Amino acid sequence: MGPEEETEDEQLVKEIEAIMAYKFKDSKLVVEALIHPSYYYPCKPEITYERLEFVGDAVLNCLVAREVFTSYPELPPGPLTRLRAANVDTEKLARVAVSHGLHRFIRHKAPQLEKQIQEFMESLLEYPIHSNGLLDPPKILADIVESLLGAIFFDSNSSLEIVWEVYRRLAEPLINPETLGKHPVSELHELCQKNRMELRFLKETWTEDTSIEVLVDGNSVGSATYGNKKEIAQNRAAKAALDWLKNALADHDPPSDSQSDP
Amino acid sequence: MGPEEETEDEQLVKEIEAIMAYKFKDSKLVVEALIHPSYYYPCKPEITYERLEFVGDAVLNCLVAREVFTSYPELPPGPLTRLRAANVDTEKLARVAVSHGLHRFIRHKAPQLEKQIQEFMESLLEYPIHSNGLLDPPKILADIVESLLGAIFFDSNSSLEIVWEVYRRLAEPLINPETLGKHPVSELHELCQKNRMELRFLKETWTEDTSIEVLVDGNSVGSATYGNKKEIAQNRAAKAALDWLKNALADHDPPSDSQSDP
Repeated sequence: MGPEEETEDEQLVKEIEAIMAYKFKDSKLVVEALIHPSYYYPCKPEITYERLEFVGDAVLNCLVAREVFTSYPELPPGPLTRLRAANVDTEKLARVAVSHGLHRFIRHKAPQLEKQIQEFMESLLEYPIHSNGLLDPPKILADIVESLLGAIFFDSNSSLEIVWEVYRRLAEPLINPETLGKHPVSELHELCQKNRMELRFLKETWTEDTSIEVLVDGNSVGSATYGNKKEIAQNRAAKAALDWLKNALADHDPPSDSQSDP
Repeated sequence: MGPEEETEDEQLVKEIEAIMAYKFKDSKLVVEALIHPSYYYPCKPEITYERLEFVGDAVLNCLVAREVFTSYPELPPGPLTRLRAANVDTEKLARVAVSHGLHRFIRHKAPQLEKQIQEFMESLLEYPIHSNGLLDPPKILADIVESLLGAIFFDSNSSLEIVWEVYRRLAEPLINPETLGKHPVSELHELCQKNRMELRFLKETWTEDTSIEVLVDGNSVGSATYGNKKEIAQNRAAKAALDWLKNALADHDPPSDSQSDP
């Protein structure tokens, strides 16, 4: 390693330490946590963030499980699981990464990554809070949050408390039972059931992208198209249908205690 | 709580402490860790093992992730994940439960449970080591190992080291890269690919149970039927096909360096 490269690493470590508010004993862990498998291309990658990400993911799940268990002693296991998931899923972690600028430090040779990250950051303007399945964030953004937490876990001699302090600060506000949104597909199912409406999801055949159409009582009330990811298309179609349906139900069935101005 | 019931709880705690080699400060956690949702039937269960299991599962995943990461510094993330999974999956944990007699302390009102546990224990005679997907253990056996580990985690003030000491002793020998078996479906795919054979899995229609037939180059070489769980039927059919195929390949293609007696 030349002196110039050494300085680059040192600079990287300093900036990451400032963001994470944690001082590393073993700064090699920081560098490792940010190396994408493409970085050594065309050579075989010797070190990538993936091993640290594997551990960081498990540590984070453990910490958030403990947090929701102790914060909500009355909450049954089902809602506990959903609450944990929302606080550690790809979208939540990708938001953490970009809001603290961690994506700037990824070492990679995958040119499309920059564009994907840029697009995700732009879509956050449209979805300022967790979208519950409408966004498709680049997984690498979540991965590096996990790998950096894994690095801190080992560097701190397996201290759960230190890792938790770091993540809690980076991730605030954590999603709680009040801010935990409903998944659009579940919400649409509930709404249709309540109003005795027949709900169907149809997938367009013969198209390259995945197009999903939502039919309620036989009428198309929402649709969405999204590359090759059926789940995103389905969630967005459900969201469009929900918006339409709520509007329609409000028009036909104004609440009796409405106090709106004439 | 009457004095008799108190004695029963005390007895329970003592026996669990002996098995886990851990002395609880808060013995209510032990009781909670062993209450199946059926126990309070027909009343709504107030306390069940499920919340502790949720945390215990996450703690165990974290501990085994750390263990395989540090024990095998050269192992890529894929094999790390498989190694972790094998040491925390339902079969491994169910084996831990029955080998230490933990199943005797489950508080439930689900009569079929006893029979399922009995059948699982009998099947262990046929499969003395991890079956890699051929067995279908009652999930509750894995659940109570996780809930008891969750109980120790909270009782020990979130000490990863204490929980790890307990689990390592209960679970030994841990599965390592040498003892990690292959999944029969993957192994069959590899074997067929290597020998340029066409492999197909067919599912019998019109039957109530799930029946899977394995065809290699158009010939049925293995089959299995298993209730409504396609995965178990598929794994067992693959295992039968593997046994048949290995035999057939050995007969047709004896190794040239064979030193068998005439």
